[in-house]
Amino acid sequence: MSLPLEKIVTAAQRVSRAYRIESGKRFRLKHISPDDTGGLAQNKVDIQWRAKTFLDFANARLAALQEKLYAQKRWSVLIVLQAMDAAGKDGTIKHVMSGINPQGCEVTSFKAPTGAELAHTFLWRCALRVPEAGMIGIFNRSHYEDVLAPRIHPEFLKAQNLPPSLVTKKIWQERYQDINAFEKHLARNGVLVLKFYLHLSKEEQKKRLLSRISEKNKNWKFSESDVRERALWDRYMEAYEDAIRATAQPWAPWYVVPADNKWYTRTIVAVAIIDALESLNLKRPKNPKGHKKILLDAQKSLSEEV
Amino acid sequence: MSLPLEKIVTAAQRVSRAYRIESGKRFRLKHISPDDTGGLAQNKVDIQWRAKTFLDFANARLAALQEKLYAQKRWSVLIVLQAMDAAGKDGTIKHVMSGINPQGCEVTSFKAPTGAELAHTFLWRCALRVPEAGMIGIFNRSHYEDVLAPRIHPEFLKAQNLPPSLVTKKIWQERYQDINAFEKHLARNGVLVLKFYLHLSKEEQKKRLLSRISEKNKNWKFSESDVRERALWDRYMEAYEDAIRATAQPWAPWYVVPADNKWYTRTIVAVAIIDALESLNLKRPKNPKGHKKILLDAQKSLSEEV
Repeated sequence: MSLPLEKIVTAAQRVSRAYRIESGKRFRLKHISPDDTGGLAQNKVDIQWRAKTFLDFANARLAALQEKLYAQKRWSVLIVLQAMDAAGKDGTIKHVMSGINPQGCEVTSFKAPTGAELAHTFLWRCALRVPEAGMIGIFNRSHYEDVLAPRIHPEFLKAQNLPPSLVTKKIWQERYQDINAFEKHLARNGVLVLKFYLHLSKEEQKKRLLSRISEKNKNWKFSESDVRERALWDRYMEAYEDAIRATAQPWAPWYVVPADNKWYTRTIVAVAIIDALESLNLKRPKNPKGHKKILLDAQKSLSEEV
Repeated sequence: MSLPLEKIVTAAQRVSRAYRIESGKRFRLKHISPDDTGGLAQNKVDIQWRAKTFLDFANARLAALQEKLYAQKRWSVLIVLQAMDAAGKDGTIKHVMSGINPQGCEVTSFKAPTGAELAHTFLWRCALRVPEAGMIGIFNRSHYEDVLAPRIHPEFLKAQNLPPSLVTKKIWQERYQDINAFEKHLARNGVLVLKFYLHLSKEEQKKRLLSRISEKNKNWKFSESDVRERALWDRYMEAYEDAIRATAQPWAPWYVVPADNKWYTRTIVAVAIIDALESLNLKRPKNPKGHKKILLDAQKSLSEEV
């Protein structure tokens, strides 16, 4: 027995709001279980059918919202995706965003910084890629990397070649402040900022990495460094928790999304984006004054063409 | 009778500090007279000789500092120039910066925003052009235009096509906050931010505009809009004063430089930059560990080449 789609969406939207963090003060990662499925799961067969049908439905709704966003050209949307390896960032982008017009969507995957990127401030490469009005921009990793990896690997911080007098114990707090101010600037100027942390358990990561090794067509996804970083799991969790606590804001919320079940991750990310876009009350632009006459004149002249 | 150059530099550096505004609270434009020459002027002939000799000297000193900046690649310098038309921005860049290696210096002249610029947040086009480590970047006009022109010409603000709910009475205060946070981020990450307002009197502007009309080889510099904007002089002064008061910070000071005498403007800008660069205590990078051996080995192998 399946619920009607609209009801699933409503239920999922309600559930997704529980993962939305607008103020970090009391937040702890342990409050959210990576294998939570928010009461949406009953049995495995039902879920898989439901998840597929639901995503099709959500894709169509997202596509319709994106069309209005694009036509109106007042707002843009910045979606930040952060997670440990194998938490499903790429799969989420693929499955949640596949229905929308790629002309209105730009995905930027931030890798290890290039020389030119290291020579600029850490926000520079991200500021460059903030979506313009009308666009959805997706950051696959982001400026948050700069309060994660270099905190755990001091050599990454060293590679930024900052003047030593500026590298103090306060550097992470200062970076959080800079990030908050940057995102506030975006929010004040029409960029809707939505940040997702895909919350994977260490056990589930192990399973997924093992399957990347055992399944031949997944081998390309496996990187030696995944195992190295996995060994630093607890320190990463600490850095993520700190970053989320310091940068969850009403104008740039974090969604901490359980990631042990891919169908659930995708469902929550999709409805959270739909929920946020709907709150903008997007509308196709109205005809400007006098445009009606221009349309009618053009219609006439086209019709009368010999 | 002329003072030795070193003495002029010292005197000028001392004088220039009086124009440095690190906190805007008590600042008023009327505190600084556009035709001030800080006691450095005695008679016109002496001044012209002195100004020329001094600028040559200052250029050489700047060039030496820039070389170290470039070699060390830890700091960068962002010089912001703002002023009314004909105040001497272009002449200042030309005369102050001509001695330095252009490979280490980028000048960006911000004009009326393009379509792509309007589609992004107002800080975007400036953030893109922040100089990388080792470089001097000069902004000929800057992000400050966005708290000047659109404040006086509401149609410029309208052209930014912001969501109406974000355009409130607080918009200028919000922009000052965003600018302060942006410049703080730069300062914390190794960008020395120096902002210059060339403070011209309305009378002197009239003279200069008239000479752009009467002198044929200056005609190309004249734009009809200069006269239109001149009519809004008082409102511009108010907007400049507000902006300077709100954004003068220890980490991003404003220099309000008297601009009725070109030689004096250039002298003050030159020494202020020299002063600030000297405070960084720039040094060519030391040989890394083991580099001495590499040098000696290479020397040997090159010498023994057949």
